[in-house]
Amino acid sequence: MTEGFDPWDEIAIIGIGLQGASIAINARERGLAKRVVVGDISKTNRERALELGLCDYATADLADAVKNADCIFISVPLGAMASVGQEIGAALKSGSIVTDTGSTKQSVIKDLGSYIPSDVHFVPAHPIAGTEYSGPDAGFLTLFQDRWLIITPPPGTDNNALNRVRNFWEACGSMIEIMEPAHHDQVLAVTSHLPHLIAFAIVGTASDLEDHLMQEVVKFSASGFRDFTRIAASDPVMWRDVFLNNKDALLECSARLSEDLARLSRAIRWGEGEQIESLILRAREIRQALIEAKQV
Amino acid sequence: MTEGFDPWDEIAIIGIGLQGASIAINARERGLAKRVVVGDISKTNRERALELGLCDYATADLADAVKNADCIFISVPLGAMASVGQEIGAALKSGSIVTDTGSTKQSVIKDLGSYIPSDVHFVPAHPIAGTEYSGPDAGFLTLFQDRWLIITPPPGTDNNALNRVRNFWEACGSMIEIMEPAHHDQVLAVTSHLPHLIAFAIVGTASDLEDHLMQEVVKFSASGFRDFTRIAASDPVMWRDVFLNNKDALLECSARLSEDLARLSRAIRWGEGEQIESLILRAREIRQALIEAKQV
Repeated sequence: MTEGFDPWDEIAIIGIGLQGASIAINARERGLAKRVVVGDISKTNRERALELGLCDYATADLADAVKNADCIFISVPLGAMASVGQEIGAALKSGSIVTDTGSTKQSVIKDLGSYIPSDVHFVPAHPIAGTEYSGPDAGFLTLFQDRWLIITPPPGTDNNALNRVRNFWEACGSMIEIMEPAHHDQVLAVTSHLPHLIAFAIVGTASDLEDHLMQEVVKFSASGFRDFTRIAASDPVMWRDVFLNNKDALLECSARLSEDLARLSRAIRWGEGEQIESLILRAREIRQALIEAKQV
Repeated sequence: MTEGFDPWDEIAIIGIGLQGASIAINARERGLAKRVVVGDISKTNRERALELGLCDYATADLADAVKNADCIFISVPLGAMASVGQEIGAALKSGSIVTDTGSTKQSVIKDLGSYIPSDVHFVPAHPIAGTEYSGPDAGFLTLFQDRWLIITPPPGTDNNALNRVRNFWEACGSMIEIMEPAHHDQVLAVTSHLPHLIAFAIVGTASDLEDHLMQEVVKFSASGFRDFTRIAASDPVMWRDVFLNNKDALLECSARLSEDLARLSRAIRWGEGEQIESLILRAREIRQALIEAKQV
């Protein structure tokens, strides 16, 4: 936790969902910005943000939202990054910092980065924190507390700008990691995107069941299935865009998983008990590694 | 919760793992049996059961364990059901009740049922309760509290015996459901066996990654992957046997899941955003059904 973060005079948050609202709450409650402006195309979200006291001013005009901001947090679905870049690019104040919360980094650098003028600093970042809830009401102060925040600076990123972003997130309680954008996308494909993909698939598979079976699946869901439905309850547009924007790494992971699932199914079909057991044991070892790394 | 369950004079618990130990703790702390005998082929488990005060007597001789018991709880991996039946069949007391905690019911009825003499009552049951821990030390009093207990009586099951088993479990805090054995196996394939299968597969997929990537998967596991490792930490022998003993229903589910995963992967590859979104939304509806059924 950084003591005494020198607050920004004004920040803009583009997209006031779970992450944007949590950034606003942190900025206000921890005194990290003197003024918070929200840019959001949704009237409902803007009105709710003002009602909740998340910001001083909210507008649908994104250029208007960013024009006086020292730091701009872009927290929109990945598919909207390019259009947001196009709208705000010319309005950005010289010397300001643009950062984001997107779940894939190569796509953000490509889609958003090209609209950032040379006198504005771009520091792509990804807070590894979330819940299955979405919208401005989902935000809370401790969302980022003790969670990783990965910064993926493109070559030539300004060091002072990077440190300002780092210090902001440290003040929110995050642990910081610096990573290559491509490597970030590969790691997150395994730890986050594939688990979500499979959760959506398995819950979808269940929803195709005959009605009477489905009712009992719901009733007896506590035996494992329920954990998947929690993951699968996450925001559809956000996840659609994550999948589309990390396609290569995700399809590679998904292909590997299909092979492993086929091998396991085959072993079950042919009663190969020893092979099944050794595949299960292998999974157990990873759990052990997590426990040793204090990740559980 | 049944008031005043008329306690059995003696019960035997064959297999003193997570479930067996939790049954013992319930029997003793709630006064459901005057004497508890444990039969277990593992010396370590027997010694630990005595140390923990789970039973009055423990033996490796299963026939000896059951000979005076009014009710016998068989809580061994599914692959051991037949051999346990063979060992105890002739020693069972006339009028006693044999029940079990197996996760698949058709296989238990086939493997164990054939060894139960005609003057002994057989009431197959499945407590839908567990943790990722195993062994006698894993047992605890509230494991079955507010959890489902499914009884799958074969045709001609004695009603009094069924009610005694039902009342025992009600006294442990369980909610009771009576179900056809085949239907049970189908429901559990979806709610429990498939989620475990996929968790083992996905964690196994991750464990094949290059070392440097693997370390970061562990480090950043909080983003979804961690939930899978918890499921995948479950007992290997127990799960091997579940998969082998519910093969048909499980392979059918697994095939459906593979199709759904292939469809989702294909939509990602070809950038079919609308289809991805509608598949995600479908998964969300199931979560809603769970919330309405108060299962979350």
